[in-house]
Amino acid sequence: MQPKFADRMANMNGTATREIFKLLSRPEIISFAGGLPAKECLPLKEIADITQELLASADVSLLQYGTTEGFLSLRQRLVEYVRDVGITGIDTDNTLVISGGQQGIDLLSKALLNKGDVVLVEDPTYLAVLPIIDSYEGRAVGVKACAEGLDLDDLEKKIVAYKPKLLYVVPTFSNPTGRTYTEENRKAIAKLTAKYGVIVLEDDPYGKLRFSGKAVPSLKSFDADNNVVYISSFSKIISPGLRVGVAVGDKAILRKMAIGKQGTDLHTSNLAQKIVEKYLEKGYLTPNIEKSLPLYLRRKTAMIDAIEKYMPAEFRHTDPDGGLFIWGELPAGVDTVKLLPAALECNVAYIQGQVFYADGSGLNTIRLNYSNADPEQIDKGIHALGDLLKKKLSEVK
Amino acid sequence: MQPKFADRMANMNGTATREIFKLLSRPEIISFAGGLPAKECLPLKEIADITQELLASADVSLLQYGTTEGFLSLRQRLVEYVRDVGITGIDTDNTLVISGGQQGIDLLSKALLNKGDVVLVEDPTYLAVLPIIDSYEGRAVGVKACAEGLDLDDLEKKIVAYKPKLLYVVPTFSNPTGRTYTEENRKAIAKLTAKYGVIVLEDDPYGKLRFSGKAVPSLKSFDADNNVVYISSFSKIISPGLRVGVAVGDKAILRKMAIGKQGTDLHTSNLAQKIVEKYLEKGYLTPNIEKSLPLYLRRKTAMIDAIEKYMPAEFRHTDPDGGLFIWGELPAGVDTVKLLPAALECNVAYIQGQVFYADGSGLNTIRLNYSNADPEQIDKGIHALGDLLKKKLSEVK
Repeated sequence: MQPKFADRMANMNGTATREIFKLLSRPEIISFAGGLPAKECLPLKEIADITQELLASADVSLLQYGTTEGFLSLRQRLVEYVRDVGITGIDTDNTLVISGGQQGIDLLSKALLNKGDVVLVEDPTYLAVLPIIDSYEGRAVGVKACAEGLDLDDLEKKIVAYKPKLLYVVPTFSNPTGRTYTEENRKAIAKLTAKYGVIVLEDDPYGKLRFSGKAVPSLKSFDADNNVVYISSFSKIISPGLRVGVAVGDKAILRKMAIGKQGTDLHTSNLAQKIVEKYLEKGYLTPNIEKSLPLYLRRKTAMIDAIEKYMPAEFRHTDPDGGLFIWGELPAGVDTVKLLPAALECNVAYIQGQVFYADGSGLNTIRLNYSNADPEQIDKGIHALGDLLKKKLSEVK
Repeated sequence: MQPKFADRMANMNGTATREIFKLLSRPEIISFAGGLPAKECLPLKEIADITQELLASADVSLLQYGTTEGFLSLRQRLVEYVRDVGITGIDTDNTLVISGGQQGIDLLSKALLNKGDVVLVEDPTYLAVLPIIDSYEGRAVGVKACAEGLDLDDLEKKIVAYKPKLLYVVPTFSNPTGRTYTEENRKAIAKLTAKYGVIVLEDDPYGKLRFSGKAVPSLKSFDADNNVVYISSFSKIISPGLRVGVAVGDKAILRKMAIGKQGTDLHTSNLAQKIVEKYLEKGYLTPNIEKSLPLYLRRKTAMIDAIEKYMPAEFRHTDPDGGLFIWGELPAGVDTVKLLPAALECNVAYIQGQVFYADGSGLNTIRLNYSNADPEQIDKGIHALGDLLKKKLSEVK
């Protein structure tokens, strides 16, 4: 039979990163496409030890059904965990264990969005938030960004014009640009959204991966009106394969998210939850991050150096203090979507910037990930990409 | 601020089993409420050995991001796995690894349902399917059941009347009734739904837990038109805490489900997937099930015996050949919703039958789970419940 799918599926064709992930089985490809942590930073030994200890304890609750909200002991630890980003005065009912940060975006969207509701996102934004908004038949509208963070005039203008249910931001080492919003910008966003009753989803998967500059408190820490939901994930700092993250926010909102979670996976895998709990309890997190940062900095520096060496002079790019991504912009007329097959033929993969824009613009932009290739590969890959772009630019001129 | 939630949340107040699950921390309560496998059947030792082996292999792909569809090696094994229920002629593209059977219901609903679309369900049906349908603003309509399975006349009548997108059934050891559809009934359902272009979701979490009677092939095995999606789960036969299941069906449908899964959790926890794969590969499944069945049969027998001993004569009930549940019916006028607090005061928990009905009827029905209490507890709990029901009945008369 010919199945008739829901309207929501019409625009949902698979996210670019997920689809490229499948192509990357070709080992000769140097990939700047994904957002994978370096394999050298994945703590296999610590996780093996923890897991052995957990399973030797003969605690069958590990294998049994658990509560949707997550293990209470993990949630207690997470209350402590988020103090680092300035979130205080909360208890376990303000937390929800989620199956990766992605699930937090999905559950909050499910709790809030009716068909046609607007979600404001930074232009450009994390690409996978757009199909989630589609899946609830909401509508994403981009807000201009500036060096300090969001363009506050544009934000207010769009709040007034669209009466959005939600603002989605990645204020620290943004995906895709790598930029960090200033403290002032965060305070202003918290104030403005509270004034108009807009819920904010602050997505913070990269905040702990800072190799230079000064840490900035979370947007949530300036949230006087309890309208900010903060989500974080252990994917980039412990292991993405575990699929564990946390949402923190208003109890009534988190309760609705938990009800939504009942329908989607009942609860997050117990073993994965307990591995994260023990990892935090044993104090492995900080030393492992400290060990990882020099590697990430080396790779970012290698990419910046290679960009300066090989990319056309017209290529403008960010230079982040942390996270996983560099954002690049080419002169108008260069189409990075059309260019991708040629890049893959040169054995280099990137993500076309277009997929990060709510309105499908940004054809001349590109996201480059530096965390998952070593400096030699980065040099080689950017060299090939630079040559390709120079050739393209000479054709455009 | 006062958050304004989506319309879909209006009817979603948390499923009865999940909410009762949270109350059951009181150890004195004898619970017939959940659907938990017996803790004695959870293979802690085997899973500890497998996990140690997996993590000793130094395979970092375990901790890295994986593909949304699941590990290819696991999917290859699942193609073999479903042969047991008569599903043949498929390849890995017909499979999707899901985070428990629950996620399969959610993803197929997401792929198919527009606001107002009807989903036919057996009356009574698995309670957690109803909030999922709510979450996509669909509408559940009950189909009458009979001793053979679905009432085929009522099914056809409702297909014609409601033009449903989907029919959801648990044809083997149904949750909540414990009944199994006959082979003829399955064939007729497959034919009828194909004729009218209705997609069927066959949910089979309990099929392998058969302690008497003859196995019946899956409904999917009679699916000439590829309109049946089969989902199964390892929650009842390995461990629910892992959150791993499988969906099998038409490639175009599974592709849409995979796109939906990208948005909700990217992929199922790698370690959990690999534990299931190794468990199957090592041949642990069949011996562990064979070891578990006598225990489940003892418990079911203990419950049937206790029902006959203590329950009022008016109590009618099923006597299943497998699975986890007995379904009971009391004379009209007994309200098992109102009775629940009194039962909890007597330290017995059950699920009020009403929550399994699409239209909220079935006030005089009750679901009893026998898998998670030992025969002595079962005798004690049914004794207390029987006394309470007798008292109630004498008041009603």
